[in-house]
Amino acid sequence: MIKENSYFAGTVKSLGFEQNGEDSSVGVMLPGNYTFGTDAPERMTVIKGSLVIKRAGEDTWSTYNAGEAFEVAGKSSFDLQVKIATAYLCEYL
Amino acid sequence: MIKENSYFAGTVKSLGFEQNGEDSSVGVMLPGNYTFGTDAPERMTVIKGSLVIKRAGEDTWSTYNAGEAFEVAGKSSFDLQVKIATAYLCEYL
Repeated sequence: MIKENSYFAGTVKSLGFEQNGEDSSVGVMLPGNYTFGTDAPERMTVIKGSLVIKRAGEDTWSTYNAGEAFEVAGKSSFDLQVKIATAYLCEYL
Repeated sequence: MIKENSYFAGTVKSLGFEQNGEDSSVGVMLPGNYTFGTDAPERMTVIKGSLVIKRAGEDTWSTYNAGEAFEVAGKSSFDLQVKIATAYLCEYL
């Protein structure tokens, strides 16, 4: 099954799927500023576009471009600045 | 706007978006055999998983794994064998 998710009034959407027992999703974020909470730890990979992020407790923003990835701890959160429509892969670790 | 698309009874779903005036989509294909028609020429990049494809007029199947891409001519079609749930990026050229 492919699970459709919509966040922030439809400005972020994702498609969740399972592969070999592991959950992942691909999604798109339109320009905007967002805060996402995490349940499980996750790895976010930028597919096309760019994400500027700051994890909870961090002071500085980091930029990730297509092909680059960052991880976020579980039971935490991260802030995002999205300047152009960006596609991403989220893998739950 | 992020456009949700669903094909083949929901076993293939995609999210279409525009970035700098160019149309792309990210999507997920569940295991199965599919034929897709193209309108514009497109480049398909495997994000996670694997696609086995054969373009219209070709005799042999080719396998593309994560990070690999193939192009398909416009006004044409290609057959796909999907063995595990696979995420892809489709860029219209």
